[in-house]
Amino acid sequence: MAGNTIGKIYSLRSFGESHGKAIGGVIDGCPAGLRLEEDDIQRELDRRRPGASPLVSPRREPDRVEILSGLFRGVTTGMSVGFIVYNRDARSEAYDALEHLYRPSHADCAWQAKYGIRDHRGGGRSSAREHVARVVAGAIAKQFLRLEGISVHACTARVGHVQIEQDHPTLPCPPGSAIGCPDPLKEAEMVELIREVSRAGDSIGAIVAGVIRGVPPGAGEPVFDRFQARLAHYMMSINAAKGFEYGEGFRAAAMKGSEHNDPLRASSRGVIPVTNHAGGILGGVTSGEEITFRVAFKPVPTIALPQQTVTTSGEDVELTATGRHDPCVVPRVLPVVEAMAAMLTLDMMLESNLYPPT
Amino acid sequence: MAGNTIGKIYSLRSFGESHGKAIGGVIDGCPAGLRLEEDDIQRELDRRRPGASPLVSPRREPDRVEILSGLFRGVTTGMSVGFIVYNRDARSEAYDALEHLYRPSHADCAWQAKYGIRDHRGGGRSSAREHVARVVAGAIAKQFLRLEGISVHACTARVGHVQIEQDHPTLPCPPGSAIGCPDPLKEAEMVELIREVSRAGDSIGAIVAGVIRGVPPGAGEPVFDRFQARLAHYMMSINAAKGFEYGEGFRAAAMKGSEHNDPLRASSRGVIPVTNHAGGILGGVTSGEEITFRVAFKPVPTIALPQQTVTTSGEDVELTATGRHDPCVVPRVLPVVEAMAAMLTLDMMLESNLYPPT
Amino acid sequence: MAGNTIGKIYSLRSFGESHGKAIGGVIDGCPAGLRLEEDDIQRELDRRRPGASPLVSPRREPDRVEILSGLFRGVTTGMSVGFIVYNRDARSEAYDALEHLYRPSHADCAWQAKYGIRDHRGGGRSSAREHVARVVAGAIAKQFLRLEGISVHACTARVGHVQIEQDHPTLPCPPGSAIGCPDPLKEAEMVELIREVSRAGDSIGAIVAGVIRGVPPGAGEPVFDRFQARLAHYMMSINAAKGFEYGEGFRAAAMKGSEHNDPLRASSRGVIPVTNHAGGILGGVTSGEEITFRVAFKPVPTIALPQQTVTTSGEDVELTATGRHDPCVVPRVLPVVEAMAAMLTLDMMLESNLYPPT
Amino acid sequence: MAGNTIGKIYSLRSFGESHGKAIGGVIDGCPAGLRLEEDDIQRELDRRRPGASPLVSPRREPDRVEILSGLFRGVTTGMSVGFIVYNRDARSEAYDALEHLYRPSHADCAWQAKYGIRDHRGGGRSSAREHVARVVAGAIAKQFLRLEGISVHACTARVGHVQIEQDHPTLPCPPGSAIGCPDPLKEAEMVELIREVSRAGDSIGAIVAGVIRGVPPGAGEPVFDRFQARLAHYMMSINAAKGFEYGEGFRAAAMKGSEHNDPLRASSRGVIPVTNHAGGILGGVTSGEEITFRVAFKPVPTIALPQQTVTTSGEDVELTATGRHDPCVVPRVLPVVEAMAAMLTLDMMLESNLYPPT
Repeated sequence: MAGNTIGKIYSLRSFGESHGKAIGGVIDGCPAGLRLEEDDIQRELDRRRPGASPLVSPRREPDRVEILSGLFRGVTTGMSVGFIVYNRDARSEAYDALEHLYRPSHADCAWQAKYGIRDHRGGGRSSAREHVARVVAGAIAKQFLRLEGISVHACTARVGHVQIEQDHPTLPCPPGSAIGCPDPLKEAEMVELIREVSRAGDSIGAIVAGVIRGVPPGAGEPVFDRFQARLAHYMMSINAAKGFEYGEGFRAAAMKGSEHNDPLRASSRGVIPVTNHAGGILGGVTSGEEITFRVAFKPVPTIALPQQTVTTSGEDVELTATGRHDPCVVPRVLPVVEAMAAMLTLDMMLESNLYPPT
Repeated sequence: MAGNTIGKIYSLRSFGESHGKAIGGVIDGCPAGLRLEEDDIQRELDRRRPGASPLVSPRREPDRVEILSGLFRGVTTGMSVGFIVYNRDARSEAYDALEHLYRPSHADCAWQAKYGIRDHRGGGRSSAREHVARVVAGAIAKQFLRLEGISVHACTARVGHVQIEQDHPTLPCPPGSAIGCPDPLKEAEMVELIREVSRAGDSIGAIVAGVIRGVPPGAGEPVFDRFQARLAHYMMSINAAKGFEYGEGFRAAAMKGSEHNDPLRASSRGVIPVTNHAGGILGGVTSGEEITFRVAFKPVPTIALPQQTVTTSGEDVELTATGRHDPCVVPRVLPVVEAMAAMLTLDMMLESNLYPPT
Repeated sequence: MAGNTIGKIYSLRSFGESHGKAIGGVIDGCPAGLRLEEDDIQRELDRRRPGASPLVSPRREPDRVEILSGLFRGVTTGMSVGFIVYNRDARSEAYDALEHLYRPSHADCAWQAKYGIRDHRGGGRSSAREHVARVVAGAIAKQFLRLEGISVHACTARVGHVQIEQDHPTLPCPPGSAIGCPDPLKEAEMVELIREVSRAGDSIGAIVAGVIRGVPPGAGEPVFDRFQARLAHYMMSINAAKGFEYGEGFRAAAMKGSEHNDPLRASSRGVIPVTNHAGGILGGVTSGEEITFRVAFKPVPTIALPQQTVTTSGEDVELTATGRHDPCVVPRVLPVVEAMAAMLTLDMMLESNLYPPT
Repeated sequence: MAGNTIGKIYSLRSFGESHGKAIGGVIDGCPAGLRLEEDDIQRELDRRRPGASPLVSPRREPDRVEILSGLFRGVTTGMSVGFIVYNRDARSEAYDALEHLYRPSHADCAWQAKYGIRDHRGGGRSSAREHVARVVAGAIAKQFLRLEGISVHACTARVGHVQIEQDHPTLPCPPGSAIGCPDPLKEAEMVELIREVSRAGDSIGAIVAGVIRGVPPGAGEPVFDRFQARLAHYMMSINAAKGFEYGEGFRAAAMKGSEHNDPLRASSRGVIPVTNHAGGILGGVTSGEEITFRVAFKPVPTIALPQQTVTTSGEDVELTATGRHDPCVVPRVLPVVEAMAAMLTLDMMLESNLYPPT
């Protein structure tokens, strides 16, 4: 109930603070019989690792994952999978100044009210560093899905005012992409914008587009556990997420039924829609088409510009933040979005008896 | 697991098909000691009732709710609350033609693939008629919340291309409003647009804006069960919902941190934000400010215009739908949005030990 | 969380008080495609019905079940199954005297402390009349299990000091058995004992033995959700249950490993144990052998003899109970034990991917 | 769903195999504000540690626990608590001979059937070594309970044919007790019996009696989540448990209502029962009296005597087990029983809004 657990069958429970000893978790519901590739998990972690480019936080964390259980000679046994990633470069002293004040648009004040105690070092558990556990559990989910030909991909669709064409978001990114945008010209603009706001001590919002390919028809449960409802839950649990849509999303509000409906036609692989305005889900259940969705993120709240705030003893002060942070959630949030989509997809396939395939 | 249950403490499990005997449910987790006003429940049902205006389906259902348990002399006892609303005006014969074909952009085809069987009469359980149970459980939740001075309100913010100013959505509606839009001039345009698409045999999408007022700080659980994540889940489980956002939502993607951050200041009622771009939630936990959100809905998929589709035996055909339906989800979806918001708010307050207040 | 729901996949949520309008429930997780035999459900209800013999309560309830949803032309659709059994012969006036005092060894006093309110009429929801909903959900589970050759059987193994031989409990009962005891001579003694205590205004305890046959190997989840742990939960949730054991149960405490261990041998149907001291479960997982268990029940606490008790205003008084009740939980608890065992078995098979068989 | 998680609010998810890298877990739902005493946790682990006496396994594990998260300056923050206990003295080579055969009355064969793969080293996750995680989570629960004056105590009530008087089980043990039996004379007999079966290469069963003191009235949820039903679940999830009873337990089957009912009387602390045959729970809810229960354990299945068994390739063979093991579950299971009782009590108090006290 306390919110550190997600998933019904393939389920992650995580722990760890930004400046604590370690981030880790326990995955329950891992099907038996998969040869787990630890390199693949590490590759996903590396995508999210800080210190990897001038666009992201300079904190230097190796982020090496250690699997502690659930494997026998490299193969999953059906037992719970414990894992741990030790924190190595936590510089808590940089946060000493924050112990006695509340950062605007951070969890600080609300958590203090809720718990009466708060770990101010690097934001404690409210830091996006908890995403590390999600990426590990998502990387394992991806390996299960890959066996069935299912893939998950996220790209940067918008940074500030720079956005790609609506129709591009699910295209592959060119090799060497800095922030995972499928349109190289737009990406250059986005990178420049991120550098600019960073130099100005500011931050900027973004939109991530995702696609899940290869999911068979029938995943999802009618009424309250529709695929899209649980996908929204998973995505909106990511730090800084402010909005979720799938298929045509908010644009559907401006459309007529005759425009938005997807006509059906018979084909050799059964009944298929001519278009996919629906985004791959009907009646809460996957249709077999691509599942498309977008997630909006606010600008990272930690900025270097001076801000008006209040101390824990109730005095108005001006804050000029230090500490290491990203000016934009992209590119580091992309593997997190993918991880959450992968976990949800595997979980709903298990729940709907679609995994393992019979 | 099968998706007909929502909520952890204040929890609804519902049943019923559009043309079955009844819609109903069992609410578990109703706190003891509330004098339940059945009239208030009925009033909410009446807001969603078909046949009430020329803008909505002409199906004539009295939608009388009967509470079957959990009350002693009108007061809740802490026991589960069973309730039932009998279906009275189901005209299944109008759907006979639909038994052997799949309606585009409906659940038909996906559910057939999933279950191998499907109740085609009025869409069975995929019909928005299941919302009746939500409205009942939400109306009861509202009564609990009202005791603590908490209110939930939803209004129509957009129909097709007609939208109110961004800053209005949480204003009260004028008395006699036809579709719950706070701006009378815009409402007139919206109503005209709905009539127009209805005459043309078409339908139109919409956006609903909601606000939850009076929630104390501290509701919501960090990491995976953030208030916004579960609110997104609740909203995206409503029929025809395509998108969810809270606070600045998708607009936050175009904002800088220095614009989006809410400065804090000391006040007689504690630390408060100068602005509320955050939408009332920080670190997954309510801040004590208004919780603002918006939900996008697709155009109702049932239209009278001819559409290309496929029979259950795999032949391409043209469908011209009959049956009774709404041209737009508003106004009937408004009490459903409110019901879901009320249920979630009560549930998270119970989970976070904020209800009953100590 | 409030305790009116049981099961993870095949799950019952029930409602209803002894003297309320109805008993009912909603079953979620019913697999699609089963032709449901309502007569079979009714037959199970009839086994539990009051008024059927001189050994049981004279309350006359027809206990007719009505299925409200989840069926299409008699076949389950995978949707939630709502059902209702109206109360017809509730004579609340007989309980008027009990409004202002607490019955010894009943829920009265504890519930009053917990909720601050209590439905005293027939014990409200603490009455064994809530078992009606269990029997309905169990009868449906039995139909699913029967398709796979799985059966559940419960018999009376002890009433007061009269008990059958340890080795008999899973034998079939002879036709016409009054209280479901497989040994006709012992049954005659038991019946005489029940009559005797009944005449004396007293009541008597009992032990029920159960067996689940035909469960394939592999149902149950290691560590916390072992088959026996969840079976214990299900059984100990029955009114008046005081103890649970499986296999050798408490007798195992007096045995040596060399006596209790079941040697293994190779056979044409795989590895099988020579004996079944284990009771069909190893490492929390079904072994493929018969699952044997026993449940102890206290004497029914409602007795006609005078008892010392206290009024709600705190005065010591003597209570001489009226109202209609059974002198012993058998025979009416037998279908309840079977129902709980059937629900648990189906649920764990669904959870362990053993149902439907592939 | 996969069974490695227990508890609704105060909830443990554990991981780890007997011969893997570590045993550990994540506790969710730890209330904020408790100064956690790591020494107290270690003391509980030491009670369960192997190698501590000639009566238990000679495996030498320091069993040092490391708390990884959820604390700020030694005080719980409300965040999830990760912990780890590294395995140090796993001698897997002793188990090489067991890779290709199934040990009688162990999980081996059932788990192989279920998962198609199995970690044979020390029994993998089916080993009682997983109890380490329970003891850690239970020790933390005990600290929360202690603040409210609630204590949990378990003692040895029976070993083989040697048993204490029925009325003694909840008495304190004398200092220096070898196996936690409150009756020194009986304990001497029990110890001698354990030594004897151990010398003979055999093992012996036992019964543990427990008492939970100081729980206020009102913990527990009616119908399916009665306190006793969930306590039975917790206890029957312990390795080797075969039976559970509370209050009079199985003896209640032989009693009359007039003997078993607990008369009530008015007292300065409210309505109280004159006797406590009920075992502290009525209507599924704690009454405020002592909660008494007993758990039966089978003899440890690993014995040195030759046994008939089968290889993984289906040949009948004789097994003479090696490896290090206990001849009886007591005394090492006592802190496990206490841990499970403490976790359940805290969880149900949280669920019933009795913790923290208002």
